[in-house]
Amino acid sequence: MKNTARRLLLAAGIAAIAFAAPAAAQDAGMKRWKQGTGWGWVWGPEDEVGALNEMTDASRAAALRLAAQGRAYDLGLPYDRNSYRWPGHNPGEIMTFRTPEGVARQRDLPFTTAEQGNTGHTRWHSSAMFISDNVATQIDGLAHITHGADNHWYNNFRADQWTGDFGVRKADVTTIPPIVARGVMIDVAGQKGMEALPSNYEITVADLEAALRAQNVDVTPGTVALVRTGTARFWGENGSDHAKIGQHDTAGIGMAAARWLVEQKGAMMIASDTSGLEVLPPRPADSQFVGGSFNPVHVYLLVNQGVHIGEFHNMERLAADRVYEFAYVATTNAIRGTVAGTALRPLALR
Amino acid sequence: MKNTARRLLLAAGIAAIAFAAPAAAQDAGMKRWKQGTGWGWVWGPEDEVGALNEMTDASRAAALRLAAQGRAYDLGLPYDRNSYRWPGHNPGEIMTFRTPEGVARQRDLPFTTAEQGNTGHTRWHSSAMFISDNVATQIDGLAHITHGADNHWYNNFRADQWTGDFGVRKADVTTIPPIVARGVMIDVAGQKGMEALPSNYEITVADLEAALRAQNVDVTPGTVALVRTGTARFWGENGSDHAKIGQHDTAGIGMAAARWLVEQKGAMMIASDTSGLEVLPPRPADSQFVGGSFNPVHVYLLVNQGVHIGEFHNMERLAADRVYEFAYVATTNAIRGTVAGTALRPLALR
Amino acid sequence: MKNTARRLLLAAGIAAIAFAAPAAAQDAGMKRWKQGTGWGWVWGPEDEVGALNEMTDASRAAALRLAAQGRAYDLGLPYDRNSYRWPGHNPGEIMTFRTPEGVARQRDLPFTTAEQGNTGHTRWHSSAMFISDNVATQIDGLAHITHGADNHWYNNFRADQWTGDFGVRKADVTTIPPIVARGVMIDVAGQKGMEALPSNYEITVADLEAALRAQNVDVTPGTVALVRTGTARFWGENGSDHAKIGQHDTAGIGMAAARWLVEQKGAMMIASDTSGLEVLPPRPADSQFVGGSFNPVHVYLLVNQGVHIGEFHNMERLAADRVYEFAYVATTNAIRGTVAGTALRPLALR
Amino acid sequence: MKNTARRLLLAAGIAAIAFAAPAAAQDAGMKRWKQGTGWGWVWGPEDEVGALNEMTDASRAAALRLAAQGRAYDLGLPYDRNSYRWPGHNPGEIMTFRTPEGVARQRDLPFTTAEQGNTGHTRWHSSAMFISDNVATQIDGLAHITHGADNHWYNNFRADQWTGDFGVRKADVTTIPPIVARGVMIDVAGQKGMEALPSNYEITVADLEAALRAQNVDVTPGTVALVRTGTARFWGENGSDHAKIGQHDTAGIGMAAARWLVEQKGAMMIASDTSGLEVLPPRPADSQFVGGSFNPVHVYLLVNQGVHIGEFHNMERLAADRVYEFAYVATTNAIRGTVAGTALRPLALR
Repeated sequence: MKNTARRLLLAAGIAAIAFAAPAAAQDAGMKRWKQGTGWGWVWGPEDEVGALNEMTDASRAAALRLAAQGRAYDLGLPYDRNSYRWPGHNPGEIMTFRTPEGVARQRDLPFTTAEQGNTGHTRWHSSAMFISDNVATQIDGLAHITHGADNHWYNNFRADQWTGDFGVRKADVTTIPPIVARGVMIDVAGQKGMEALPSNYEITVADLEAALRAQNVDVTPGTVALVRTGTARFWGENGSDHAKIGQHDTAGIGMAAARWLVEQKGAMMIASDTSGLEVLPPRPADSQFVGGSFNPVHVYLLVNQGVHIGEFHNMERLAADRVYEFAYVATTNAIRGTVAGTALRPLALR
Repeated sequence: MKNTARRLLLAAGIAAIAFAAPAAAQDAGMKRWKQGTGWGWVWGPEDEVGALNEMTDASRAAALRLAAQGRAYDLGLPYDRNSYRWPGHNPGEIMTFRTPEGVARQRDLPFTTAEQGNTGHTRWHSSAMFISDNVATQIDGLAHITHGADNHWYNNFRADQWTGDFGVRKADVTTIPPIVARGVMIDVAGQKGMEALPSNYEITVADLEAALRAQNVDVTPGTVALVRTGTARFWGENGSDHAKIGQHDTAGIGMAAARWLVEQKGAMMIASDTSGLEVLPPRPADSQFVGGSFNPVHVYLLVNQGVHIGEFHNMERLAADRVYEFAYVATTNAIRGTVAGTALRPLALR
Repeated sequence: MKNTARRLLLAAGIAAIAFAAPAAAQDAGMKRWKQGTGWGWVWGPEDEVGALNEMTDASRAAALRLAAQGRAYDLGLPYDRNSYRWPGHNPGEIMTFRTPEGVARQRDLPFTTAEQGNTGHTRWHSSAMFISDNVATQIDGLAHITHGADNHWYNNFRADQWTGDFGVRKADVTTIPPIVARGVMIDVAGQKGMEALPSNYEITVADLEAALRAQNVDVTPGTVALVRTGTARFWGENGSDHAKIGQHDTAGIGMAAARWLVEQKGAMMIASDTSGLEVLPPRPADSQFVGGSFNPVHVYLLVNQGVHIGEFHNMERLAADRVYEFAYVATTNAIRGTVAGTALRPLALR
Repeated sequence: MKNTARRLLLAAGIAAIAFAAPAAAQDAGMKRWKQGTGWGWVWGPEDEVGALNEMTDASRAAALRLAAQGRAYDLGLPYDRNSYRWPGHNPGEIMTFRTPEGVARQRDLPFTTAEQGNTGHTRWHSSAMFISDNVATQIDGLAHITHGADNHWYNNFRADQWTGDFGVRKADVTTIPPIVARGVMIDVAGQKGMEALPSNYEITVADLEAALRAQNVDVTPGTVALVRTGTARFWGENGSDHAKIGQHDTAGIGMAAARWLVEQKGAMMIASDTSGLEVLPPRPADSQFVGGSFNPVHVYLLVNQGVHIGEFHNMERLAADRVYEFAYVATTNAIRGTVAGTALRPLALR
């Protein structure tokens, strides 16, 4: 879709909402979602939050009621220097910065010496990290992906105004609210009886429908939808088996599934257990849908719809326990300028 | 307390638990806590979790029932390069690593070029971070502080065995389970009618009791206790007013309050809104209690009791809304080797 | 000077050289320098080297003949995490990355184990550095400073084309040739009988002339001119006395001295013992000379003339030994994209 | 050789020097070198310099006289994020820290604004580097390699005393003096008529002798010996062809050649054009010579002899021009704690 065309469409959509949609949206308990178009740039010109604006006290309370058993599933994958990562990001190192032995030898801080009272030898560890804001279990912020020759992201924030030296200055990760919402895991690999989907497999709408039917659960407006390919089962201790992970990491949803989830079902956020959610390489028609792109589903969700993406969410224990519906609770770190929550541990509470 | 003495005491404590305590502990719904001694190294020689082992499905379910209104309070303070931090940690930088403009100019990745199909100019932001594992809103892991000439930490893990080049190898942050527990905020500053406690103010047991009485709420075994000094109100956008923050940051609990919370009330974790929870400088008797230390409450809680510490937890909105009891939900990042959750956003769900 | 005006002037300069200057320039052994205008963008549209193009085998051989005694003066100032630096650059950390103890404990590399033959316990230290390309003893590359609304640097390379994600892509530090040239130290502080020049002192042409006269040495075309303020004497072990260094660091040359050195004397590079060579704050007329700038001498030298700048060059031992003429030998690190040689040790060979 | 045995031998060597060696050593213009044993820990218990202590004004002057033509050969290999490196070191990133566009957008420094006089739009580039102290063209400092269960390095400095949190505290890179010495390139690949030596090829004494004979030049006491394998010819722009470089990178000298160069010829420093100078894997007898080691020649040179090692020195242009004797001039960066000069540009002046 051309940029101009999209804007017209969005403008039309806004008008539609203003005049006609409220009834339907309220039916679904939604503020702005409209079946058939989803969201878009519908939250005003200053908005940096997107579809997560739909959360309310009522929706959070309803989500938390799903956690009546008090079981907590940690969806995070542990990260270290050897972990699998996308080549467009920087490598990472965790370095022991201060060590008990180093503090003792260095004697650079007077309060650590026995002479000044530290006769019990209190010392500490701390680590310096050189790390990407996009590794292991992530939530992509709305500023992560830009599109168009004008390098705009969600809500028309543009690089020539809002890309700074210390990260982005609009829709950075600190604008992602704490996410407390109904979560639904769609176990596509499980429904197909596979350990993990094969390389380059496109998850279709039919796949999602079949899995949901088998699970007897549905995606309703405002749900965080988690799509399982099975890739995370090969992560192990630290994601060091790059070949095996890479083999399955290219499976994912195409544009049709993304649009169905957002426009027909009202998924407020979509996550998967791969590094990039979407099938790779993109289907030519999907690429053309956004005017030519190596990551069209990202453009569609993050830029055009304002829908956050979850990546490398570990659903293996959910799958083993056949847990398909839960309270999804996730917060990113509060680091200004960064564009994604990195090495996170979202929770599925049941 | 001498190390040997402490071990004897702990051994005695373990024996006591084994033979006599279960009844009382079970009364409080606790597995190992014993009124009068708290915890200690009571979870077996391989344990890296400490007091948080007390969490159960039942305790989490009970905690989550406190969130019936669905209100979410974000306790995190936003971090950037100018934020206040303890001088023992490294400074931080968030650097725009890949930028839309840079990707376009650099042309180092073929899939980003129009020739290879990216005619819609999809590009991205990512940030490289050089950051400490101990900044802004933190949860100190049990390996953070060491003590004794043998540089041991919780459960007798020692530096000469378990301090590695890539962080610690026992009780790192990945061993902190997702924390879902009853939280109680003890608003000491509020009870005293102060914006924030003055420099070097020691919060006493009487202060805690008075605040709890005024709030009509109690700390029960398994509670996460959050003690408010008011310091976080001066954090602002990014904690850049070092002088003002520093002025109040030295207020905190002393050993008496720490022991009362753990040994008498069963607080499973203690947090505050300062960089280090405890009053600075430490009272001489508190320092001597652990054999001489610049941070005796840290030694007592992390090393001796296995009780995690929360720092720079922002309770300003809780205080404004007079919310004193809630579900506390926090996860650290899953970064192997690191010793604290950094720049976190714990939640108080109400 | 307006950008357009400067271009015309430069164009005029080039024309002048092409038709009339060769005789005079050759007289001085120079290829392109012209008394009265200096250099400029005279080396062709692809040039990234600037005035250092003047070096030849003959000029290097002549310079090295000044080192007949074989004495070597190290002009570098040692850098560590506490060193004084300009606030526009990132702080630095040197971190022990691999340590003998860590290698032994970590056992992550099989060849380090006794089982695989390392019975003699060979291990190693290496450090990871997080460092700026602009600290301690520096040589500013021609891409360091940009000017004009079009963000151009030397030879009209512009940010919108040549600033990449991994540093600059034109005139980075790898394009600075090894510098082997006649060096002359102009001891302004010494001539005035001062330990160091006072804050904000502007070094004038008269100051330079007086010092050179007292030293009985002259700046000739192709010389590297080192101007001594005395600031480096307060660097000590690691430049940690920021107040004392900062007090003198604002002394330096103004536009008149810079122009005299380049246009009248043919200095091929200018260095000093401060962080920024030029007097701060800049004189209003100097700022206006380049259209309004906080660093007009940098703009004049780096952008307009193609003359490299040396900073924090330690001349204390040269001054003590009254060594005023020598072979100046310096190489930067060969790190692509960086814009300055950092923590260097240039040599004065005598 | 066992540690105790070596110490006795060294003690014997010191005695021998004290009573008998001076005549022979002075004959060669050396202070402490003794034919048959080389150096060792002969410079006193506080020494951090090693064999480079041999340099004098006279030796430097003599070396510089070799540069009569004034030709400068840059021996450095350019480094970037894609460069070949040893897996024991951290990866590197050069990041544009401040950019003209970012400075303009960020407006975080008042002096950069037009309101405060910067009407000419002066801005700047600087880079933040995350880099190893051991990449591209290096000089290994004497603290780089440790040996023995006590983790000692040159002159018996031990990790339990002198390894700090911010690098090593004895014999770091700042203790390496500026190196100005006679250099001799030994073109083993050239003498054999090969582009580059094959994988795992051990350069023998006979190889060195044959090449020196063909070149009609000799290694004399105090010489920096550069041994050419031809590997650097595959470095290209940035050392990104890891497979091709790796194929030749394992060729190098064994213990016999190392000992011959140091003990018989008096080479004061030995360099090559590979990442590690010595043949890999080490010959079993070489490994046993130091009690079992994956890097026995490093142990012999750095730890036992106090002889610095040069790595990835690019000799391709020297070879093309058949330049075998020259003044070798190299300085490392002055960064406290680091153990090697990194991404250097040593010079061969002719």
